[in-house]
Amino acid sequence: MEVVVVGGDAAGMSAASQIKRRIGREAHVIALEKSGDVSYSACSMPYNIALMRDTDDLLAVRAEDFINRRGIDLRLFNEAINLNPKNHEVTVKDHRNEKIYTIRYDKLMIATGASAIVPPVKGLQREGVFTLKELNDARRIKEYIRKHLPKKAILIGAGFVNLELSETFHKLGMEVIILEKMPTILPLYEEEIRNRVLKELDKHNIKVLTGVEIQRIDDPLSISTNAGTFKGDLINIAIGIKPNTHFLVDSGVTVDHRGAIIIDRYARTNQPNIYAGGDCALIYHRLLNRNVYIPLGTNANKIGRLAGANICGANEEFPGIVGSNIFKLFNIGIAKTGLSLEEAKREGYNAFKTTIKTRMRAHGYPNEGTVTISLITEKGSGKLLGGQIVSEGEGAMRINSIATALYGGFSIKDVQAIDFAYAPPYSPVWDPILVCANQAAKGV
Amino acid sequence: MEVVVVGGDAAGMSAASQIKRRIGREAHVIALEKSGDVSYSACSMPYNIALMRDTDDLLAVRAEDFINRRGIDLRLFNEAINLNPKNHEVTVKDHRNEKIYTIRYDKLMIATGASAIVPPVKGLQREGVFTLKELNDARRIKEYIRKHLPKKAILIGAGFVNLELSETFHKLGMEVIILEKMPTILPLYEEEIRNRVLKELDKHNIKVLTGVEIQRIDDPLSISTNAGTFKGDLINIAIGIKPNTHFLVDSGVTVDHRGAIIIDRYARTNQPNIYAGGDCALIYHRLLNRNVYIPLGTNANKIGRLAGANICGANEEFPGIVGSNIFKLFNIGIAKTGLSLEEAKREGYNAFKTTIKTRMRAHGYPNEGTVTISLITEKGSGKLLGGQIVSEGEGAMRINSIATALYGGFSIKDVQAIDFAYAPPYSPVWDPILVCANQAAKGV
Repeated sequence: MEVVVVGGDAAGMSAASQIKRRIGREAHVIALEKSGDVSYSACSMPYNIALMRDTDDLLAVRAEDFINRRGIDLRLFNEAINLNPKNHEVTVKDHRNEKIYTIRYDKLMIATGASAIVPPVKGLQREGVFTLKELNDARRIKEYIRKHLPKKAILIGAGFVNLELSETFHKLGMEVIILEKMPTILPLYEEEIRNRVLKELDKHNIKVLTGVEIQRIDDPLSISTNAGTFKGDLINIAIGIKPNTHFLVDSGVTVDHRGAIIIDRYARTNQPNIYAGGDCALIYHRLLNRNVYIPLGTNANKIGRLAGANICGANEEFPGIVGSNIFKLFNIGIAKTGLSLEEAKREGYNAFKTTIKTRMRAHGYPNEGTVTISLITEKGSGKLLGGQIVSEGEGAMRINSIATALYGGFSIKDVQAIDFAYAPPYSPVWDPILVCANQAAKGV
Repeated sequence: MEVVVVGGDAAGMSAASQIKRRIGREAHVIALEKSGDVSYSACSMPYNIALMRDTDDLLAVRAEDFINRRGIDLRLFNEAINLNPKNHEVTVKDHRNEKIYTIRYDKLMIATGASAIVPPVKGLQREGVFTLKELNDARRIKEYIRKHLPKKAILIGAGFVNLELSETFHKLGMEVIILEKMPTILPLYEEEIRNRVLKELDKHNIKVLTGVEIQRIDDPLSISTNAGTFKGDLINIAIGIKPNTHFLVDSGVTVDHRGAIIIDRYARTNQPNIYAGGDCALIYHRLLNRNVYIPLGTNANKIGRLAGANICGANEEFPGIVGSNIFKLFNIGIAKTGLSLEEAKREGYNAFKTTIKTRMRAHGYPNEGTVTISLITEKGSGKLLGGQIVSEGEGAMRINSIATALYGGFSIKDVQAIDFAYAPPYSPVWDPILVCANQAAKGV
């Protein structure tokens, strides 16, 4: 069987590896990657930059290992530029020699990822202006920092990437300002969580301005906006990402309004023998019972693995995500799973929110950290719809119990009944989730 | 309504508070406590001793608050010495004036806790020989340490209490040796977890000898055993606890072979209007579908709260525990939920174990901690039966997701499908539980 995998990061290499693991030599697996990097931890890039370490640290599996140990025909610097499902053909450009060639496939996996969105303004090409999506971006940023020793960073957009980078640049000694177009940061989080994030940024002298639209980037580096001009030595733009699916134009593979490939729960596109997954595709949301665009590394790895299995005939159905995420910002962790109150209401749920703030550990255990938990519950049925946590230390990891409960379709009464493990260094005797659930149960 | 609560710690005061919260002045709630301490975090005592802090730090709610703010008729130093269910009467001894009196109740809650078991040997009364179950024990140990500056501690029994105390005494500068009668420590844990615990103890020069039966304690302090004589300056015995139910002799309240009160899922004893819970009673285990004796603070709080609600007519059914516990030992956390492989086999399950060891965090995130996870699965059905974790840092808290899955009756396939939140500071992109579940799924 000839399998072509387009894209050499999480979804693509998970699929390729899974196929080789399942059917070995019965499959000739060609993996095309337009850059020189495969299977790296993109999410670790802010930490890699903070430490100014070599990007090799981020590689989970090396290219040689995919080739030699897993037997994958990995072709770096090879980009798929056209797809013809009728002829089962992919047109490929080899950037090393500028040659264009065609491959015939029996099964195709599209895992081309996504690219950083940039605003339609002048000056984006100036030195010192970055986006951070690929490993080469991380390399360029570190090189720039080494060469120019920037003193002030301006971050456009207040999502996960720039929040994490605010810590990175702060640790590298820069003054940091975040400019956000929307009236608020983290709109999918509850207000009490957002406020805690703003407080943490403020503690570290990181300025956040909202409602700021950027108009132009000038030289020497400065940004003109509706709120005045900001000077800086380094600019990073992280306002969102868009699926890399332009090469599918005229292929007949269906994409949504933003260009994300529509797949079913078997990772199949609308075209026979063509699978897709990762940042270039939608993914099935278990609570919403429909596809959503939530491009995260975990999702890419899971759907890639499943696509690989199904290419081998496994017929596995994707159970769906529930929208879990977590990020760290200085001394706090921020996590979410399921729906926010606003999202739940938008979905037609008669939902309410319960928020508690409590100590992280038992009385008498020497640590005064606190954890804030919000649970979203449906009135009447008591169905658990979502949860959010902000905590000092590692307390935000409690989100995984809520994610587990959401997978299981728990009611708030079920949550009250969970037998959480207790010891003073880890928790108060009433686990914070139970305290919140006990409170929420009264409102059902 | 006249309610008498016997015992003023977790289960008792949870019940008393719940009753006052639900029906306020309609209930006269008398709480009898034989000591002078109520509602304290017993589990925090090893940490309190390590810091040589005042025991007041351990009080979650003060006696005055129970009396003045919650309106509970709390009677310290009052001990129930007899129960007559036929007449609805409790006989009480007031230790402050040695008077004996009788109270009539409409509803009774028995929450008398448990006492440390001691071996049947001579010399237990010598100065420097302790058990650690009550707040007064902690006071006595601290006083002894202040006065005698012990250099060497001998711990009899290798359960949670003495393992935690081994760290405490080590931090206080003592040489520590643990003597355990059984051929192994932590028999309900898997071997790989036990070995990691032994390694951690060894790292801190704490000696563990197993198969040691103690025969006699002599003065100057030394312990004669089948393995020779051990000299020390401080001895703590923690070989188990037994329910404080001796006063129920002839009351007609049914207890099991060890003296633990048999209750149903509504916290009712076999006698009308008499409820019980906490360390003096059995508790319903959800996986085993029967009562077990697992005396823990979390269980006591939950059953106390439920008993209080049911005394007020709530008719709540206890959902059951799944046997979760966690403890910290120097730099590692050790946690368990559900059944061990041996327990599962004893219950008639055709069970198997899957163990993985993996890094705690993502590639490129600077922390080389590891986490070891074992999952117990039923062959054929794929039913999840239990899990154990040993981890550096706070990784053992992941046990709570497994506990949540056990409450939900998850199969290993369900566990594979959980949408765990991911960010490099918290986890590898494949969460360690998923790595273990993926491995386990192959064995079903």
